[in-house]
Amino acid sequence: MRPAAITGEKRTMTNLLDNIEEILLMGPGPSCVHPRVYSALGRNVLGHLDPHFLTIADELRELLRRIMNTKNEFTIPISGTGSAGMEASFVNLVEPDDRVLVLTNGLFGLRMQDVARRLRARVDVLDFPWGRPVVTEEVEKAVRNNPYRIVAVVHAETSTGVRNPVKEIGSVVNGTDAIYLVDTVTSLGGMNVFMDEWHCDALYSSTQKCLSCPPGLAPLSFSEKAMARVRARKARVPNWYLDFTMIADYWGQNRVYHHTAPISMIYGLYQAALLIIEEGLEQVFERHKRNHLALVEGLEALGLKMLVEEPFRLPMLNTVLVPEGVDEASVRRRLRNEFKIELGAGLGPLAGKTWRIGLMGHTSREENVSRFLSALGRVLEG
Amino acid sequence: MRPAAITGEKRTMTNLLDNIEEILLMGPGPSCVHPRVYSALGRNVLGHLDPHFLTIADELRELLRRIMNTKNEFTIPISGTGSAGMEASFVNLVEPDDRVLVLTNGLFGLRMQDVARRLRARVDVLDFPWGRPVVTEEVEKAVRNNPYRIVAVVHAETSTGVRNPVKEIGSVVNGTDAIYLVDTVTSLGGMNVFMDEWHCDALYSSTQKCLSCPPGLAPLSFSEKAMARVRARKARVPNWYLDFTMIADYWGQNRVYHHTAPISMIYGLYQAALLIIEEGLEQVFERHKRNHLALVEGLEALGLKMLVEEPFRLPMLNTVLVPEGVDEASVRRRLRNEFKIELGAGLGPLAGKTWRIGLMGHTSREENVSRFLSALGRVLEG
Repeated sequence: MRPAAITGEKRTMTNLLDNIEEILLMGPGPSCVHPRVYSALGRNVLGHLDPHFLTIADELRELLRRIMNTKNEFTIPISGTGSAGMEASFVNLVEPDDRVLVLTNGLFGLRMQDVARRLRARVDVLDFPWGRPVVTEEVEKAVRNNPYRIVAVVHAETSTGVRNPVKEIGSVVNGTDAIYLVDTVTSLGGMNVFMDEWHCDALYSSTQKCLSCPPGLAPLSFSEKAMARVRARKARVPNWYLDFTMIADYWGQNRVYHHTAPISMIYGLYQAALLIIEEGLEQVFERHKRNHLALVEGLEALGLKMLVEEPFRLPMLNTVLVPEGVDEASVRRRLRNEFKIELGAGLGPLAGKTWRIGLMGHTSREENVSRFLSALGRVLEG
Repeated sequence: MRPAAITGEKRTMTNLLDNIEEILLMGPGPSCVHPRVYSALGRNVLGHLDPHFLTIADELRELLRRIMNTKNEFTIPISGTGSAGMEASFVNLVEPDDRVLVLTNGLFGLRMQDVARRLRARVDVLDFPWGRPVVTEEVEKAVRNNPYRIVAVVHAETSTGVRNPVKEIGSVVNGTDAIYLVDTVTSLGGMNVFMDEWHCDALYSSTQKCLSCPPGLAPLSFSEKAMARVRARKARVPNWYLDFTMIADYWGQNRVYHHTAPISMIYGLYQAALLIIEEGLEQVFERHKRNHLALVEGLEALGLKMLVEEPFRLPMLNTVLVPEGVDEASVRRRLRNEFKIELGAGLGPLAGKTWRIGLMGHTSREENVSRFLSALGRVLEG
């Protein structure tokens, strides 16, 4: 079906936006969006140098600091999705031949290696099995014996549902010269992230997971140690769009024009962050935990097995093994079409073998857990 | 004023979004947004691999092809602002030591030089005065004597209000091996852009100018010649986030996950593009022209002088000289505070000497021209 706009002259008949169903988003993101965030997106656009817009942007930065538990001045939303947060972190920090250690136990660790290598870093890897956490003792050995410039890890591995010991690794990296770079794309807003206490120097996230805002921005924070590294670069950042030396001048007191900030998305993220702070961080995390436990209990009652061992499970992303003989894609299709529920597929070595069930942000509600379990039960019955 | 969210415990009182005024956006972008685009932003988020979302995204690509007048398969919205479109164009095309010619007569030409040099291109520049167009004959001499890999130009120089002769330059670059790279950030959707007919190989734009959507995406198109250049690179694109070899796999039939598409912004851009096609491209351009002429007439009646000579003026961005003895910043401040109108300041050598008056997209309406002229008249009276 093709709208008249494309084939004919003028006066379109079909607007595909009119047929958007309300899908319960229980994949690895985007997650469900709160009605107040939808309203925020539709507020009047202001100029990107308008005083009231800058006040909103400044308050958003304060809210992000609260959620990240940091005092870092350079805490901003990057004008791109979570992956742009990863790109921005590496491109500002890496100089050619820098030694970078990437702790890898899933797709997003692999992606970090790829990003860093393209920037001509010398990348070392500590590899751990998909579905198992990074082992801090091995990191300790590695950083003791090698003068790394950066040590990078993913907090919540979205590809497997594993929580990595970011705090413990931080205490090992702390005291070395390395910048400690942490991906909190899936964890931020759904579980504790103590950026300063855990000695993280660079941290980025996304909007469409536990912050429950549509995708499009990457909340990011750099410590003074990380910013000093950027300022001390020999060559300029090989990426104009993401160059923090210039971006800091827009977000700082000077308000120097760099690129036009994504106004409406910033409204949305401000509202989303405000909802979290209003509910209370501890209450939000408790809700994620509670619904996660209810989901696991329900899945086990259906005879399903979790991929990850209990102590390393994420509250917001649940990876479950597809039972023998079940066509995983057709289960997802039926859930989407008959029950209006989106479920995530496995990635990499886990493709075809797992489902990824998101309970992120506004999706993490008791009624969604029951609705999902009942739907899955019916689909698995055949 | 600081919301309770920041200072206190829970239960915020102040939501800064509640105090957003409706400002008539007559700066260099963002422009006013149509109510239907605001509604589009608030539609239910779907997954980035959801079949209905992919249909919307595909139709958006068709609409963009219509507005760009191209048949290029690789025509997509880049997940970043217009500047990310510039970054993406250069980072995919430039390899170290490539010879790049940048035609420069304003800030955005300068920015192109900066972007290309950071990617280790050997950049040559043909410089023309700010406020004057690029001279095709000089480009002809340059490309005849030098085997450039890329020739880059800005169609509508947002810093000066000058229209560059993109068609004429195209006929000169055509026949050389160079990729012809054109910035249509400010022109697209407000005046004719014939990507294929003008022999453009790479073209990008933004959403917040004549497409009248909030900032956040960069519509972009690469010809087969440009894509072949990307595929023939010796080294991988030094930017994972913007690597077109991977991005093409998401937008193509394979739908390979790369990064999460900015769903809501894509809804908004789809609706904005549909509005343009519904009105009719010729009608939209005629409206821009008509309101531009009315504005110029009104400005001249107020005794003001345009920076740019008549044949090279843009219909959507009008640069006017600040009269002797007038404090330009205080005029802008009064327009913003008393009349709720945003006006653009001058940039670079034109800072303090010019105002930039945008009549872009949904802003380009007769009533806005009269409202602005009457307000400006009153402010200038003192």
